[in-house]
Amino acid sequence: MKYMSVENMKRFIRDVGVITILKDVKDYIKQDYLRWEEFQHMPRPASHSPEGCVEVMPACDSKNYSFKYVNNHPANFNFGLQSVIAFGMYADMKTGYPVLINEMTIGTAFRTAAMSTLAAEHLARKNCKTMGMVGTGAQSEFQTLAFKEFLGIEKMRIYDRDPKALEKYIRNMADKGIEVIACKNGAETAMGADILTSCTSDKVMANIISDNMVSEGLHINAIGGDCDGKTELQKDVLYRGDVFVELEQQTREEGEIQQVEEDFPVTELWKVFSGQEIARKSDQQITIFDSVGYAIEDFSFMRYLYEKTADTDYVEDLDILINPKDSRDVFGFASE
Amino acid sequence: MKYMSVENMKRFIRDVGVITILKDVKDYIKQDYLRWEEFQHMPRPASHSPEGCVEVMPACDSKNYSFKYVNNHPANFNFGLQSVIAFGMYADMKTGYPVLINEMTIGTAFRTAAMSTLAAEHLARKNCKTMGMVGTGAQSEFQTLAFKEFLGIEKMRIYDRDPKALEKYIRNMADKGIEVIACKNGAETAMGADILTSCTSDKVMANIISDNMVSEGLHINAIGGDCDGKTELQKDVLYRGDVFVELEQQTREEGEIQQVEEDFPVTELWKVFSGQEIARKSDQQITIFDSVGYAIEDFSFMRYLYEKTADTDYVEDLDILINPKDSRDVFGFASE
Repeated sequence: MKYMSVENMKRFIRDVGVITILKDVKDYIKQDYLRWEEFQHMPRPASHSPEGCVEVMPACDSKNYSFKYVNNHPANFNFGLQSVIAFGMYADMKTGYPVLINEMTIGTAFRTAAMSTLAAEHLARKNCKTMGMVGTGAQSEFQTLAFKEFLGIEKMRIYDRDPKALEKYIRNMADKGIEVIACKNGAETAMGADILTSCTSDKVMANIISDNMVSEGLHINAIGGDCDGKTELQKDVLYRGDVFVELEQQTREEGEIQQVEEDFPVTELWKVFSGQEIARKSDQQITIFDSVGYAIEDFSFMRYLYEKTADTDYVEDLDILINPKDSRDVFGFASE
Repeated sequence: MKYMSVENMKRFIRDVGVITILKDVKDYIKQDYLRWEEFQHMPRPASHSPEGCVEVMPACDSKNYSFKYVNNHPANFNFGLQSVIAFGMYADMKTGYPVLINEMTIGTAFRTAAMSTLAAEHLARKNCKTMGMVGTGAQSEFQTLAFKEFLGIEKMRIYDRDPKALEKYIRNMADKGIEVIACKNGAETAMGADILTSCTSDKVMANIISDNMVSEGLHINAIGGDCDGKTELQKDVLYRGDVFVELEQQTREEGEIQQVEEDFPVTELWKVFSGQEIARKSDQQITIFDSVGYAIEDFSFMRYLYEKTADTDYVEDLDILINPKDSRDVFGFASE
């Protein structure tokens, strides 16, 4: 079994490049969404504590299985820890053997940005130039670079209530060929925006994007709400546009649409990607990607990582699976 | 984050001793079953392929979270691989951070034997001396040593259709102070047995223990059936005795009782351990532990392992969780 450390992940990113990885992962996600019916679609069992929640996100097709372990503990920030930390595993369904364990915190940022832009390619208007973004935390730069590269975004209007998060974003984006405008509040980010992205982390029912911020033709990319009791859109916003989701059942529990009635109409994105459903029908239409993050996106990322690194020195051996000479003789092996 | 390799697990077993580990793990499982209501009881999402199944088994209380990744692929044996391979993870619920990843194939054998004997201490007659066992595969020696130590078993009557598995068992038990009688078939193992253990691995509805093998007062320890479509007891046997289970909902899907009606009466073992239910009421009563393996037992094993090894050289550091200076700056950290 192979293992990809944080250090090797960083080396891989340096060698391959952020944009190339984003592009490749977007392609892998699209390939996997286009064969949606080959996957077993499973619930993800979440465990809650007063401080946050942890969950395992499994996905599998007939050949491979993956899961991501991930938490969401907003107060971790106060202890110098990540509020979201993750690792992943990829296995061979023919034998059930794990083949890769990998860091997945950075991986999650990549796959989320890749998925956001894959969705926006189908949902946003043509010729988008300006994106508003509320929340400039861990995901924000990955989102920005992906939207610049794949949607043609030239100007970012950003806001975060934490000035240090804003500074960090501005510093990281300084040499990336994108115009950055720091705004005084969330509402200002929406002014003239073609796309509006919310990526905040509080585990509350927030109104990050309110009705007055939503103009004709806008595409909303709402990625920060992802569990029961955590939303970012004012409820009214949902009635202004058409809502697109990853897996309907999961999004009803975890997404923005937990705020509305059970039969609120939504469209699963795999139907849009495959051409079964036309998402954008006019330049006036408001579209909303109610993103919660689906296990297939992690699967795609790990499928990509495994295929690119299995025979390279980006991965090392991990001594965690027993290998007795006689497979029946676990006892002899364990006590020799 | 710490990681316990197979090599370090073997060293730990050598240093601490099989019997001490079995005893300690039995104590840890009992402690955890006695606080049953502090745990979140979750389904385990299983994924099936033609070759077998894989699943993640999560468990958590208010302080810690664990999961085990485990497969069951009987044909792996033909390729020199384990039919069951597993690893585990243990995390801190306050931060959501993983604290230990460990080998769990050997761990599963330990916790299963510990749980079998914990159940048998409450379900079997006093003064049991002889155990019959059908299936002498990976679990068999651990079961034997635990039953010898905690139930006072002196004589084992064993059968496996695979002569090499029988030989392996006899070799491993040669110097363990227990009388071993190899039998010609399953029925012979039951002759004069106080306890009958079935631990076979085929993913079929088998009749490993049939009605004619079950005598007055017998305790049946059925550990080999553990998924949908895999059983070991002839259906009639279930009507002969009282059936005890780990988590009722899970056992109805995966256990021997998948063969009988939905309202077939069973008792959850935590109620027996806590004294709320009396299991054995006479020496004539037939008792059945319909074991499928519950995630709390893995939790207990990992809780034990973590508490015993966290500050020792049995564990090593694993570089799989990112640790940027500024937790908001995943991008800067990833691309530096």
